[in-house]
Amino acid sequence: MAINAPIKREFSALASSMKPSAIRLLLKVANQPDIISFGGGLPNPESFPIDDIRRIFDEQISRNGKKMLQYGATEGLDTLNVALSKMLRDREGIKSEPSDIIQTTGSQEALYIIGKIMANPGEYVITEAPTYVGTISALRGSGIRMIGVEMDRYGMKMDALRETLKKYPNPKFIYVIPNFQNPTGITMSIERRKELIEIANERGIMIVEDNPYGALRFSGPQIPNLRSMDGNVVYLGTFSKVLSPGLRLGYVVSPPDIRDKINIAKQALDLASSTVSEYIAEGYITGGYMDKQIPKIIELYKQKRDLMIECFQNYFPKDVEYTRPNGGMFLWVTRKGADTDKMFDEAVKQKVLYVVGSAFYPDEDNHESMRLNFTYSSNENIVEGVKRLGKLFEITAK
Amino acid sequence: MAINAPIKREFSALASSMKPSAIRLLLKVANQPDIISFGGGLPNPESFPIDDIRRIFDEQISRNGKKMLQYGATEGLDTLNVALSKMLRDREGIKSEPSDIIQTTGSQEALYIIGKIMANPGEYVITEAPTYVGTISALRGSGIRMIGVEMDRYGMKMDALRETLKKYPNPKFIYVIPNFQNPTGITMSIERRKELIEIANERGIMIVEDNPYGALRFSGPQIPNLRSMDGNVVYLGTFSKVLSPGLRLGYVVSPPDIRDKINIAKQALDLASSTVSEYIAEGYITGGYMDKQIPKIIELYKQKRDLMIECFQNYFPKDVEYTRPNGGMFLWVTRKGADTDKMFDEAVKQKVLYVVGSAFYPDEDNHESMRLNFTYSSNENIVEGVKRLGKLFEITAK
Repeated sequence: MAINAPIKREFSALASSMKPSAIRLLLKVANQPDIISFGGGLPNPESFPIDDIRRIFDEQISRNGKKMLQYGATEGLDTLNVALSKMLRDREGIKSEPSDIIQTTGSQEALYIIGKIMANPGEYVITEAPTYVGTISALRGSGIRMIGVEMDRYGMKMDALRETLKKYPNPKFIYVIPNFQNPTGITMSIERRKELIEIANERGIMIVEDNPYGALRFSGPQIPNLRSMDGNVVYLGTFSKVLSPGLRLGYVVSPPDIRDKINIAKQALDLASSTVSEYIAEGYITGGYMDKQIPKIIELYKQKRDLMIECFQNYFPKDVEYTRPNGGMFLWVTRKGADTDKMFDEAVKQKVLYVVGSAFYPDEDNHESMRLNFTYSSNENIVEGVKRLGKLFEITAK
Repeated sequence: MAINAPIKREFSALASSMKPSAIRLLLKVANQPDIISFGGGLPNPESFPIDDIRRIFDEQISRNGKKMLQYGATEGLDTLNVALSKMLRDREGIKSEPSDIIQTTGSQEALYIIGKIMANPGEYVITEAPTYVGTISALRGSGIRMIGVEMDRYGMKMDALRETLKKYPNPKFIYVIPNFQNPTGITMSIERRKELIEIANERGIMIVEDNPYGALRFSGPQIPNLRSMDGNVVYLGTFSKVLSPGLRLGYVVSPPDIRDKINIAKQALDLASSTVSEYIAEGYITGGYMDKQIPKIIELYKQKRDLMIECFQNYFPKDVEYTRPNGGMFLWVTRKGADTDKMFDEAVKQKVLYVVGSAFYPDEDNHESMRLNFTYSSNENIVEGVKRLGKLFEITAK
């Protein structure tokens, strides 16, 4: 046999331009002892209904073991899609047929597939600025450009959107997270939602609504989802925040032509999602476990949000600003003139982690903010971690 | 609010060229009553270790519930990769570090990602002809061309490969399924394996070895895997055929630069695979369940292979040829001058299903063969189904 010669490895253009996610890199540092991490968007493990899942798994494998362990349909388990269709109507006011729904390997896969099927490399979509870092990596993974539109406390600014559409009149879609947005925690007002739908419909632009946190409302009145107001909206949901992210189960509700393209694209990507996960999720909804669990999660997280904001008041310099979300998992902290990228090394030394704000801007051109997760840490660590951040702000102000 | 205007939906070029998988379409017909399907590549549900999985799940969620339900690392559960690294050495003679391994959402995701990171749209790879239909859809999903190289009973023909490389000298990689190939069931001889590695190394071409069926050898001596002969080979394995496809769990063993690109690409696709599935797989290996289960699967499948071949001898016209695989899940049936695409409607009428041979050729230019799965059907259905196929051959010969 010949001596091994050097193997040519010219990566594709897409692969060459890929960058590791800021959050994934962070997770590695987060495992060091004594580190307090407000970085990852992790649910609190106390929110996992471990005993319920054990019971559900046991029931499902006893009753449906042979189907549960077999290949499933690309669109997902039919009884799960039936249960979800009902749940979406009851909880979210969304009218959909089970056949409008496709299960995906987490919402991340839905984001990736929607970008891939809708846009060619170099084409663009419109997002909030800042927006979810996972969406940035999913779309960038297909060479898609993102044009960010400024937000205020009511969500994406509609005058800014109109201006953006003058310069960029043909986006492949507008992507928004209307409830407790990642990273800001901001909820889009009902007026903005109506105006967004109006603008999109006038121009025939598709809206993609990502709603991972909608069920986690701690305070304030529920605001209708875009999809409940307009059947053309492509709607993304997930079990990651109301059951378990370890299942890797999200779903898309979409019009038939989009659904068919998602289905074919998913066949090529991973054939189908986990039927094991799908049977667990189905048992979770139909057994009434979800309706019992969500109030518990809300109670846990509300208290943590309140605690973290209280700590901001106690330990942050007065010129540090922050959002006051009515739900979700994140607080957005901003200090005019700060550079949170430059502060990060010092934060690691102080053994407290956040995600740099720049990671949430497609052009990484904003450095004054940081995203803090309030759901994962113990109360003790929230207090200690915010103290450390307060010290960090003081040091870096010098 | 404005009346909904028609939403512009111009799909991307890749989405417009996508076609639904022949097998996925077939699965829908397969659910009709009285249909005997040799179509899908489904494990027999009797091969699923249901009681073992119930026990493993219960143990893992009791011991590791909070981690099992949480987001996991993109590369997969560390203890699973440690267990796999050892298993690959013991069972397959493959030397690898745990850090060389990445878990994927089934092998399908690995195939998709490797195509995406290695080749730009329009670039080409070399495969066996015929080759796995899922590989065709995964690579086509990134706009990659496939150049097929003819096989005989010893696998890909090396003289044909040398000829192909004259015309197509810069493939991004050579993709092969050396053991019990899908769709033919053919195993590549040791001489061919050595020659393939020699040819690839002379030219610096990467080899991708897909080994979903390697553990399912019923007869004949084990032949070393390409990856055990050459550390540059990218190796794909899966739990779908030795545990459960419902877990959606496969893995890639690759050199560090490839592994890093796979990792980053996977972050954008689905963040990570299911930690629930990973804990089940880890318990399955480390608890010794896998070593107990594989001989049972082999016993079940060997008997079904023997039965199906016996039925061919009894019920097929003498001019029908077929492979005699030493393992795996498939038999490849060929009749000179037949057109299995045209025969398919009549097969549905006769209530027996196969996959048309053309689905396994990138150019769909071969119509004389069909793929039959022997693992899924009951013994009774194998006999009755082959009788129906025999009748079909007689009808269509007229």
